[in-house]
Amino acid sequence: MSTVEDRLAQLVAPIEADLVTMREVIDASLTDESSAVGEMTDHIAQFRGKQLRGSMVMLVAKAHGVFHADHPAVAAVVEMVHLATLVHDDVLDGAHVRRRVACVNELWDNQIAVLLGDFLYARAFGLSTELSSRLCSSLLAKTTQRLCVGEIEQSTMRHQFEMPQATYERIAAFKTGSLYSAACELGARYPGLDEEAGASMRSFGEEIGLAFQIIDDCLDVVGEEHIVGKSVGNDVADGKITLPILRTYELSDESTRVAIRDAYLSEGIPDRREQLRQVCDLEPGTNYALARADSLVAQAMGRLKTLPDSPAKHSLELMGEFVLQRNF
Amino acid sequence: MSTVEDRLAQLVAPIEADLVTMREVIDASLTDESSAVGEMTDHIAQFRGKQLRGSMVMLVAKAHGVFHADHPAVAAVVEMVHLATLVHDDVLDGAHVRRRVACVNELWDNQIAVLLGDFLYARAFGLSTELSSRLCSSLLAKTTQRLCVGEIEQSTMRHQFEMPQATYERIAAFKTGSLYSAACELGARYPGLDEEAGASMRSFGEEIGLAFQIIDDCLDVVGEEHIVGKSVGNDVADGKITLPILRTYELSDESTRVAIRDAYLSEGIPDRREQLRQVCDLEPGTNYALARADSLVAQAMGRLKTLPDSPAKHSLELMGEFVLQRNF
Repeated sequence: MSTVEDRLAQLVAPIEADLVTMREVIDASLTDESSAVGEMTDHIAQFRGKQLRGSMVMLVAKAHGVFHADHPAVAAVVEMVHLATLVHDDVLDGAHVRRRVACVNELWDNQIAVLLGDFLYARAFGLSTELSSRLCSSLLAKTTQRLCVGEIEQSTMRHQFEMPQATYERIAAFKTGSLYSAACELGARYPGLDEEAGASMRSFGEEIGLAFQIIDDCLDVVGEEHIVGKSVGNDVADGKITLPILRTYELSDESTRVAIRDAYLSEGIPDRREQLRQVCDLEPGTNYALARADSLVAQAMGRLKTLPDSPAKHSLELMGEFVLQRNF
Repeated sequence: MSTVEDRLAQLVAPIEADLVTMREVIDASLTDESSAVGEMTDHIAQFRGKQLRGSMVMLVAKAHGVFHADHPAVAAVVEMVHLATLVHDDVLDGAHVRRRVACVNELWDNQIAVLLGDFLYARAFGLSTELSSRLCSSLLAKTTQRLCVGEIEQSTMRHQFEMPQATYERIAAFKTGSLYSAACELGARYPGLDEEAGASMRSFGEEIGLAFQIIDDCLDVVGEEHIVGKSVGNDVADGKITLPILRTYELSDESTRVAIRDAYLSEGIPDRREQLRQVCDLEPGTNYALARADSLVAQAMGRLKTLPDSPAKHSLELMGEFVLQRNF
């Protein structure tokens, strides 16, 4: 089986040169006259990950034959918004390390991390106001609102073991699906041309993003840290009820439900995830969640059918597989 | 002597109806389909203060005879950005109460307050993207960046007793002056007409904002809580070196400097401000800072001279007095 890096390289081959342009725009945006701020933006440049969201902007544009000179900058704006959310997420989660690099809240402090996240949001919006069309500004502002609403609702729904699956999916669609959705909509529609293709790709992005989040939630419950490549068990520790847990709880008898609640809520449990794994069988719930992610990706793939064959279209198909094939 | 409320009512008389419109736009923007978020935005609607920034947008527009149908919405955007900064400021300061109402971080928690601030920034930007001109979006994005840079630099300059006054003023101009400055520039220039008037009013706003901040910093050091109407001594507790302190330190002999540093830095001091007041005479430094605020307001007033007489111009003159005449 090919490595993640190999599969990713194959996936972005049709936009290789455009990704270079996108990264130049991001690098130029991650500088500031203030040496204090410049030192911080230099540091977070190391957080660069797979840049799937920016890639999707450009792949969708190419697959629709509507690639615009602004698209690399649009992709950069999407990645900058994502970067802002990462900096704030690390404050919210009290995280220490991201991609083997110290988090801003760790290297400086929470104050700085909140302010730097605000700065990055403002920089992203500022960049979008320089584009020829206003679509990117207005869509990204709406998207950021949805993203925050998703995070806020998630925070207020901690320890809600009996919330409907639709509530979980609404939250995941808002907090994660929305930026994928905006990326794909902007790919198909920017600078504002084809509303119908925009709507179809908006759904495509939301389905891919939601599937991505479900897989992430499964990894957090049943994955191993050294294979997943990041810390696991955070959701259980933080009281987040994700789809594999929701389904496990639903399938459990009353005494197991009590034990699950205890694993989340009792005082003095050092490793809540380990406790959870001891008191219930997580496999059926996890399999249910994985099947839901499969079905979301299949739904998304159906939306590509009307597009003519092209390397970019093929990459979007690979993206569906990529989201699902993550290492546990 | 007239009360603050009387003076404020006199000041906003030329824009009374427009303030109603502005508030309607803000109220409409402080709603959300999500009931969790709606409950929070309902709560923060109670933070409404003097709304000086929004008022300045409209007074400057009227004083220049360029009032545009969008100006109340532009003013609302400025106030929304301000509201977002307040919610994040309360997290940064660990504040409990704002305008006799519990802070978001107090009533919910820091996570929620960070996310709600992000939501408000995004809502403000979203509102600006609906306006007929892009000037408001682009100027507010730049302004928010400056605002964050000012806050970040302030945070990195804690306990720097020997920083140049110019550094203090740069930070204050960025963190506080910038939003006043943008408000006044948007008043004179929106939808993009008169760049020269825009530049003059940009300076006017920055000078007023900087004076406002200097007075605020004096209140924090020498004001009484029951007269000022908010908690005092926060800057000393938080290690912020403001103009009255900077000047006091400069005027002090070495043994007093040691005592000042101790008041800020030694462990176990319950009331750092009280300690500071005991070890040095704050009056000359405070008078120096107040004189600097006077001179900034005088400079700002000079920029109004070329404007024809009007009730709005008179209000801008009153604004200068209003900023200076705060109760200690």
